[in-house]
Amino acid sequence: MALLDNIRTPDDVKKLTIEELPKLADEIRSRIISVVDKNGGHLASNLGAVDIIVALHYVFDFPKDKLLFDVGHQSYAHKIICGRNESFDSIRRKDGLSGFPNPNESDCDAFVAGHAGNSISASMGYCAARDLSGEDYFVINLVGDASFFNGENLEALSSTDKKPCKMITILNDNGMSISKNNNGLYKFISLCTTKKSYGRFMRFANKTVGRNFIGRALKRFKTFIKVGLNHTTAAEALGFKYVGIFDGHNIKELINVFNHVKNADKAVLLHVKTIKGKGVSEAEKDPSYYHGVGSHLKTGKSTFSSAVSETLDKFASKDDKITAICAGMKDGTGLTEFAIKYPSRFFDVGIAEEHAVTYAAGQAIGGLKPVVCIYSTFLQRSYDQIMHDVCIQKLPVIFMIDRAGAVGADGATHQGLFDISYLRTLPNMNVFAPKDVVELENIFEFCLSLDLPCAIRYPNGICPNFDTHVDINERLWEVDGDGDNVILAVGPRMLKLAYEVKEKSAKPVCVINARCVKPLYKSIFDSFEGKNIIVLEENVYAGGFGSSVIEYVNQSQINCSVICKAFPDEFISHSTVEEQLNYAGLNLDGIIKLIK
Amino acid sequence: MALLDNIRTPDDVKKLTIEELPKLADEIRSRIISVVDKNGGHLASNLGAVDIIVALHYVFDFPKDKLLFDVGHQSYAHKIICGRNESFDSIRRKDGLSGFPNPNESDCDAFVAGHAGNSISASMGYCAARDLSGEDYFVINLVGDASFFNGENLEALSSTDKKPCKMITILNDNGMSISKNNNGLYKFISLCTTKKSYGRFMRFANKTVGRNFIGRALKRFKTFIKVGLNHTTAAEALGFKYVGIFDGHNIKELINVFNHVKNADKAVLLHVKTIKGKGVSEAEKDPSYYHGVGSHLKTGKSTFSSAVSETLDKFASKDDKITAICAGMKDGTGLTEFAIKYPSRFFDVGIAEEHAVTYAAGQAIGGLKPVVCIYSTFLQRSYDQIMHDVCIQKLPVIFMIDRAGAVGADGATHQGLFDISYLRTLPNMNVFAPKDVVELENIFEFCLSLDLPCAIRYPNGICPNFDTHVDINERLWEVDGDGDNVILAVGPRMLKLAYEVKEKSAKPVCVINARCVKPLYKSIFDSFEGKNIIVLEENVYAGGFGSSVIEYVNQSQINCSVICKAFPDEFISHSTVEEQLNYAGLNLDGIIKLIK
Repeated sequence: MALLDNIRTPDDVKKLTIEELPKLADEIRSRIISVVDKNGGHLASNLGAVDIIVALHYVFDFPKDKLLFDVGHQSYAHKIICGRNESFDSIRRKDGLSGFPNPNESDCDAFVAGHAGNSISASMGYCAARDLSGEDYFVINLVGDASFFNGENLEALSSTDKKPCKMITILNDNGMSISKNNNGLYKFISLCTTKKSYGRFMRFANKTVGRNFIGRALKRFKTFIKVGLNHTTAAEALGFKYVGIFDGHNIKELINVFNHVKNADKAVLLHVKTIKGKGVSEAEKDPSYYHGVGSHLKTGKSTFSSAVSETLDKFASKDDKITAICAGMKDGTGLTEFAIKYPSRFFDVGIAEEHAVTYAAGQAIGGLKPVVCIYSTFLQRSYDQIMHDVCIQKLPVIFMIDRAGAVGADGATHQGLFDISYLRTLPNMNVFAPKDVVELENIFEFCLSLDLPCAIRYPNGICPNFDTHVDINERLWEVDGDGDNVILAVGPRMLKLAYEVKEKSAKPVCVINARCVKPLYKSIFDSFEGKNIIVLEENVYAGGFGSSVIEYVNQSQINCSVICKAFPDEFISHSTVEEQLNYAGLNLDGIIKLIK
Repeated sequence: MALLDNIRTPDDVKKLTIEELPKLADEIRSRIISVVDKNGGHLASNLGAVDIIVALHYVFDFPKDKLLFDVGHQSYAHKIICGRNESFDSIRRKDGLSGFPNPNESDCDAFVAGHAGNSISASMGYCAARDLSGEDYFVINLVGDASFFNGENLEALSSTDKKPCKMITILNDNGMSISKNNNGLYKFISLCTTKKSYGRFMRFANKTVGRNFIGRALKRFKTFIKVGLNHTTAAEALGFKYVGIFDGHNIKELINVFNHVKNADKAVLLHVKTIKGKGVSEAEKDPSYYHGVGSHLKTGKSTFSSAVSETLDKFASKDDKITAICAGMKDGTGLTEFAIKYPSRFFDVGIAEEHAVTYAAGQAIGGLKPVVCIYSTFLQRSYDQIMHDVCIQKLPVIFMIDRAGAVGADGATHQGLFDISYLRTLPNMNVFAPKDVVELENIFEFCLSLDLPCAIRYPNGICPNFDTHVDINERLWEVDGDGDNVILAVGPRMLKLAYEVKEKSAKPVCVINARCVKPLYKSIFDSFEGKNIIVLEENVYAGGFGSSVIEYVNQSQINCSVICKAFPDEFISHSTVEEQLNYAGLNLDGIIKLIK
């Protein structure tokens, strides 16, 4: 890997010839493929953005200029170029590189980018700061076509028609959302080709760069320009100069374009087409499956997600009021089969969690039984909709919350460590945490019968199977054993840990599966009198399940000690789930010590 | 008021002649003006929508058809027509009508509508339910031009190009956001007039309604049609038939149009122009001030909001890095003066709370000191942005949270009773609650020095002035008095109550101004040993400040009793603030009893 070996800073890219850059891009792609194979991560999206990133580094000066990603699963090539090639083997591992841009990791990472839709807002903020401070740099954001139409980006696009200069928004368009693209605004932009564009662009080219090399070069590519130039009206109303559509894998062309738009007298919306998964044939064929993969490319499916698929099928086959809604994550949330079997009752709204939840509320008030499947971390986007549209109206929407708890390698921006806090404090909400697949089904059936807002949370990874099961009827908890030490465990991993403690402890331990997180199973609390209660949960301590136990013990004046083991008041970086649980003291050694 | 006296159900509107309807509308306007004068409420927006609502009731059948508002501050006329004229005097009062649509109040209120931006999502949900259930009704949503461009509506518009039939979205365009409209997408829609529209519409009219009365009538109004028809391309890409622009105060014309679009073979986007505040000359002149008013039209300003104005001015005049950002509520959040004095540092992004927060994060990482001014209830929209963009990156954004605590007459959808729970559980966040205007300034200065995410929450209404002040330095709490009974009070109203208790109680009471909500002032807790701690806060108990006190007492094994008085786990309806505090037991009698 001769070329890549010499890339230690962004400046080193500029020392290569333009002709050498495609080779560098190929080397970077190989590097990404080999590391993702070992460490897991986002493959297809990272591969698709390599050529754009190489071209950007050839033209712009990072970190003086700012490069923002939307979302960050396109940023691996940037990390490699910005002094992190050697440490790239550590990506997503404990104390290693983050899988997403992280300003604490490098000053070349301009903004955090774990959740989609923040890059236009953040770029506009950077520009405001630059302009008010009298500084001079470019702010560039690379945004995927799925993220582009997230409500937050649309708010930023819409908020003013005065977009700042030296802001370049690159629409990285691979023609699909994470699964597919049926987006109305996207189609609008695609349709809205104006006949005048070609002429307008030529005048623009003549005026701004007419006599230099770039202008002349661009004019030579007449056909290319003719194809590329359109949508001017739409973009102009939003305050942009539109330039496109260009081939996002032609580095030489991209360099020409970047040099050209550097001189634009207003913000630029640059539209490029790429192939998701470029460079690895399997990922090109099935980019949705390869969007995010665990270590070793073939093992990306988690058992709870597939259990959701079976559970939904079982009940949907008997009840045609049941619908399923997801926000651009059909495969990740286990809805692939449902979408095929019940196409009229399946709705993928794209990366639009706010709309997903209110859409479900509308379906529910209209008489359906919608099931909203979203990861814990992304459901944060819908906090207000869950409260205002679902809970205030007491509507029977069931939230299937995947990746709840410690998420491992995806790290701080993706942790599912807050949902208990933000859901259990909402009036009318019911929150459940099944211990395994059988209980998931049982709880789901119970939620259908409740006719109220319900949330079912479960972690990623392989879930354990427990031998015995007690019906969730009346929200009771499952009690196993007796003793002055009582462990209240939330979710499969905590329950498994509780059983390990019970087995290893010299003192008798009562293990309780606290599968109904809200409301509490209050009638059991009298039996806690005089006992030592230990709460185990994968959530922050602040406002979590343990907090609700203490609140109730305090209110009801029950005399018992309560020790809560949960996550601390900080953001938890990437590492394995096990390492994260150890960090929080949620392991055998940590809990055994608490047994009195 | 002869006509209105006979309107007891929506059907009664249909018994009138078209010629009588303008008189009915005028009577409804008079009724609204007289009741808002007594009870407070949204005047200008309600007046502007009266004619549209009268025409809708003439053509459609509510509640069989569904009428959704966005936001609900346009719904008074609908309430009056739908059997609530007699009870209209009770609006916004205890046990009276809600100031917003409420399905629990009437089956004519199709969906809750306190926060902007949910109506297109909810309407699409209704349509999905209707179509899957084989039912047949119209779903109509009336959406203001400011709400129309909220990110959630944009997500819904964008999510699919297949919009359901018999869904009619009425864009009620009064040409301004709550303050003003500088919206990029709006300008785009306004610019994007296609020359072909007139011909197209005529073919459409010929084809679908050509030979009936409406078709012939419409064809008579050639000029009117010519003016009205455009934007077809944009709307069609989003899955709508666009019809507009019509005069939203010409009831006869509106009835023709409604009858016409009933026959459309796809979803309809109907664009009407109205005058906000129609019918009351002062409100027409200054609709922003009259947007929402307290009882008696002249007294709408609250003292904390105006204190914010003075505080920001004081520090912004010395530090040109300070900027202010609001989301369509310049006047309500006290930024009117700031906007005039520091136009280059003032940003009103429209009703786009998500964008507002990330925009601030971008400004902060770029070196500015942004201050985001949003009501507590609307900041819920930014929960994820506060966590992901501000707190993870530890950025120095200061949130000025207005209307925190009980809000009184605006009721359930507007309560500021959750912000402590959703903010104090976020890592890196600092939360403050000043007791009065002097302390607001002191805390604001302290926040500037922290260089961290900070939130300052304060209630609506007149705030008390306390005689003495202790500097917030090191986040200490203010301690007054001694005794085994210690009251921890959060915010001005709770602190005032604590002092009343201290004065009336036979036992000695120590009053503590717990103005730093997060992090806790931990070093004081040792002095609580053996004492009776009473926490008073305007927030739900679940996950609130009291919850954090109990969490800490439990962790640190301090031996003291803690009693939390806060709001219960339910949504609190409209009434006065005092009545709401009484309901929660946050009054003298309730607290005196707790003193041991």
